[in-house]
Amino acid sequence: MDSVLENIELKEGRAKFFLPMSNEFFRSDGKLEPAWLPIFYNPYSSINRDLTVLGIKAFSSLFRKIENFIEPLAGSCVRTIRVVLENDDIEINGYANDISKDAVEYCVKNISLNGLEEKIKVMNEEANFFLHFLLKKGIKQDAVDIDPYGSPINFLDSASKAISNNGLLFVTATDIGTLMGKYKDTSLRRYGSHVYKTDYGREIAARVLIYSVIRAFSSNEKNAYPLFTYYHEHFLKTGFLIKKEKQANKIGFLCIDSNSGYPFDKVILGKDGFKSECSNYIGPIWLGELWNRDFLLKVEDFYRKGKENYSIKLEKDINTMLAESEIENPFYYHIDKIASKLKKNVPKFEKIEEELKKLGYASSRTHFDAKGIKTNAPYDIVFNVIKSL
Amino acid sequence: MDSVLENIELKEGRAKFFLPMSNEFFRSDGKLEPAWLPIFYNPYSSINRDLTVLGIKAFSSLFRKIENFIEPLAGSCVRTIRVVLENDDIEINGYANDISKDAVEYCVKNISLNGLEEKIKVMNEEANFFLHFLLKKGIKQDAVDIDPYGSPINFLDSASKAISNNGLLFVTATDIGTLMGKYKDTSLRRYGSHVYKTDYGREIAARVLIYSVIRAFSSNEKNAYPLFTYYHEHFLKTGFLIKKEKQANKIGFLCIDSNSGYPFDKVILGKDGFKSECSNYIGPIWLGELWNRDFLLKVEDFYRKGKENYSIKLEKDINTMLAESEIENPFYYHIDKIASKLKKNVPKFEKIEEELKKLGYASSRTHFDAKGIKTNAPYDIVFNVIKSL
Repeated sequence: MDSVLENIELKEGRAKFFLPMSNEFFRSDGKLEPAWLPIFYNPYSSINRDLTVLGIKAFSSLFRKIENFIEPLAGSCVRTIRVVLENDDIEINGYANDISKDAVEYCVKNISLNGLEEKIKVMNEEANFFLHFLLKKGIKQDAVDIDPYGSPINFLDSASKAISNNGLLFVTATDIGTLMGKYKDTSLRRYGSHVYKTDYGREIAARVLIYSVIRAFSSNEKNAYPLFTYYHEHFLKTGFLIKKEKQANKIGFLCIDSNSGYPFDKVILGKDGFKSECSNYIGPIWLGELWNRDFLLKVEDFYRKGKENYSIKLEKDINTMLAESEIENPFYYHIDKIASKLKKNVPKFEKIEEELKKLGYASSRTHFDAKGIKTNAPYDIVFNVIKSL
Repeated sequence: MDSVLENIELKEGRAKFFLPMSNEFFRSDGKLEPAWLPIFYNPYSSINRDLTVLGIKAFSSLFRKIENFIEPLAGSCVRTIRVVLENDDIEINGYANDISKDAVEYCVKNISLNGLEEKIKVMNEEANFFLHFLLKKGIKQDAVDIDPYGSPINFLDSASKAISNNGLLFVTATDIGTLMGKYKDTSLRRYGSHVYKTDYGREIAARVLIYSVIRAFSSNEKNAYPLFTYYHEHFLKTGFLIKKEKQANKIGFLCIDSNSGYPFDKVILGKDGFKSECSNYIGPIWLGELWNRDFLLKVEDFYRKGKENYSIKLEKDINTMLAESEIENPFYYHIDKIASKLKKNVPKFEKIEEELKKLGYASSRTHFDAKGIKTNAPYDIVFNVIKSL
C-alpha cells in the first residue's frame, strides 16, 4: 500500500471506517474502478453485512444469545465492527482475522475509530488456521461468518469443527457461475454435484452450496439447518443453525425432462430409487427448505425496527422470501423463457397467479429472479397457463 | 497411566519400542485383552505399518524421494520410527503427533531408544491443528499417514490442504461396517454415499472410502490417484499419489439387480444418465482403479528384498492384488453365496476360472475375500458356470 493517498472515512450501518484511497483505484477517466479497490472492502456487499447483523439479532431472539462473533476472512473488519456496535443490547465479542497484513492494518484502525479495542480481537492468519487456533484456545464459536472472494468450500470443514453446538453459521459464495453449472467440470470437482445450466440456475446454485455445507457438517456429526438463502447479483448468502445431532436426509437428484428443461422427478439419496429413465439429472443437491419462516419473520421484524441501518432493497426481498418460502418446490419457472418458447408476449405475473390459483396451485414471486414464478404446479400446467393468456 | 507395572521392550521391523504393561490389560484368566491395551499401540496393525514402509520405498523409487514423513495420529510412534529407520538410504525426517499426553510420552522414549532424537520431532496437538500448524510453518508434507481409530473422514480436509504437490497419502479406516453399508444412515451421513449390505461389501467399503478422499482433495483443486487398496480383517488401508491438477472423473453409481443382488449397470456422475429403471443403487462411490500396477510391482520388489522386516501374510496378498488389479470390474462375486443360492456344493475355484476362461472372461482371486472371484463376466455367466459345475 505504498501509494495510499489518504484514508477516506465512510459509514455503513452504525460503523465508521477508513477506506484507503490511491491513484491506482482510478480509471483514466478519473472514476473509481470497483475491481481495482483493495479486496478487503467491497462497498457492494453492505447488503450482505446487513444480513449478518439482522441474522444475529433474529437468532439471538429466536434460539439463544450469541456471545462471540467469528470472522475468519474479515477484510477491513467492517462486518465485525457492525455486529458488535449494532447488537449493543446483547454484548458480543468479535474475533476478526485476515491473511492480508494490509487488511489487518485497516482493521486495527477501524476498530479504534469505533472505540471497540476492548471488544474485538484481530489476528493475521490463514483462515483455516485461525478457526483451528480459536478451537484449541477453547473460544466458544457461537456465530461464524465465512465470506471469501470466490468459493467458501475450502473453509467449510474447519468451520464445521470450530463452531459450537446450537451455533449460527453464515456462508457466502461468489462463484455463482460454477454453482449454477455454467462450468460443469468445476462444479463437479469443487462441490461434488453434477449440475448444468438451467433457466432456474440461481436456486440450483443455492441448493448446490447448501448441499456442500450440509455434507461438511454431517461428516462431523453435526446437522446444518438452513435458516435463510439469499441471492443478490454477485453473491449467494446462506445461514444455518448448527446442531450436534443426526442429519435429516433431504439430499438427492432432480430428473430433468430434456424437452422442457424442467424437473419431472425428485430422487432422495438413500430413500428413493430411480423408478424410471432419468437420463438428465442434477445432483446430489439439497432438496429441503431454503428458509426457516420463524427466522425470516424475526429478520423482518428487526429490519423494520432499524431500517435506517440497512439497505432499502432488503425490505422487498425479505417479503418476497417470506412468500416463496411457503411454496414447496425445489425450483422456479422462468416465465419469459417459457413465453418466448411459445412465441408469445409475456403475460402479466398477476394473471398467471390468478389462473394457477383457479387450478388449485399456490404461487409467488421469487427473489432469485424477477422473471421467475415459484409454484407447486408441474411444468405442463404452467406451460398451458402461459399459453392460454 | 498410574498403574503401569513395567515397560516391555518389543521389536517390529527394525524398530525397538516400549509397550507399557499394566494389570488393567489382563483378563481374569491372566491373558492379555487386546481391547484393553492402551490405544496408542495396536500389535495387530504391524501389517499396516509394513505397508507404509514399503509404500514409501516404492513411491520414492517410482515418483520422487520422500523427505518428510508426517503422522498426525502417531500413537507410540512405532510407525514413524520404522519409516525413518527402514528408509535409511533415502534419509527421511519424521513429524509425529498425538493428542494423548501418554502416547507422546512413549513416543519420546521410543524415539530415544532408537537413537532418532535428531530425525523425529514430536508434538502433542489435535491432529487437524497439527497439520495446519506444519503448513503454516512451511514444512513440506511429502508423505502423510492418517490412521485413526475409526473413520479418517475428520482428517481428510486438513490433509488435503497440508500435503504437498506430488505427495504420498495413506488413509486407514477401521469403521468397516459403516463403509460396507451395515449402518446405512451412518454411511450416508459420514461419507455422503448411499450404500447397503452386499456380498461384495469389502470392495464397496474401499470405493466409499476412496470416493471420500477424492472428494476432499478435489474441492482443494487436487487430484488423489489410488496407488493401492488393502483390506485386512479390522482395517482398510489406501494409498494415493496427490497432484495439483484437475480431477479425472470416475465417481458414480452401481445399479443393483434386486434378484441377484449384483450390479447390472454403472452410471458415472456427470457423464452417464440413468438410462433405465435403477431402483436399487449404491453411490456415489469411486468406480476407477484401486491399484497402480507399477506401484504394486515396486512394493513386491521391496518386500522380497527385506522380507525379514514384514508380515508373512503380505507376500500372498501382494500377489493376489497384482492379479486382481488386472480385472476391470468394480466388485467381486461371492462364490459360496451363489453356490448356496443354487443349493450346490461350492465348486473348486480353479474349475470356475477354467470355465470362465473358455467363455472368454478373465478372472482372479481377490484379497478382499477368500470366497470371492474377480472377473469381467456378468452375473448370469458366473451364475451359470457355478450351476454347471
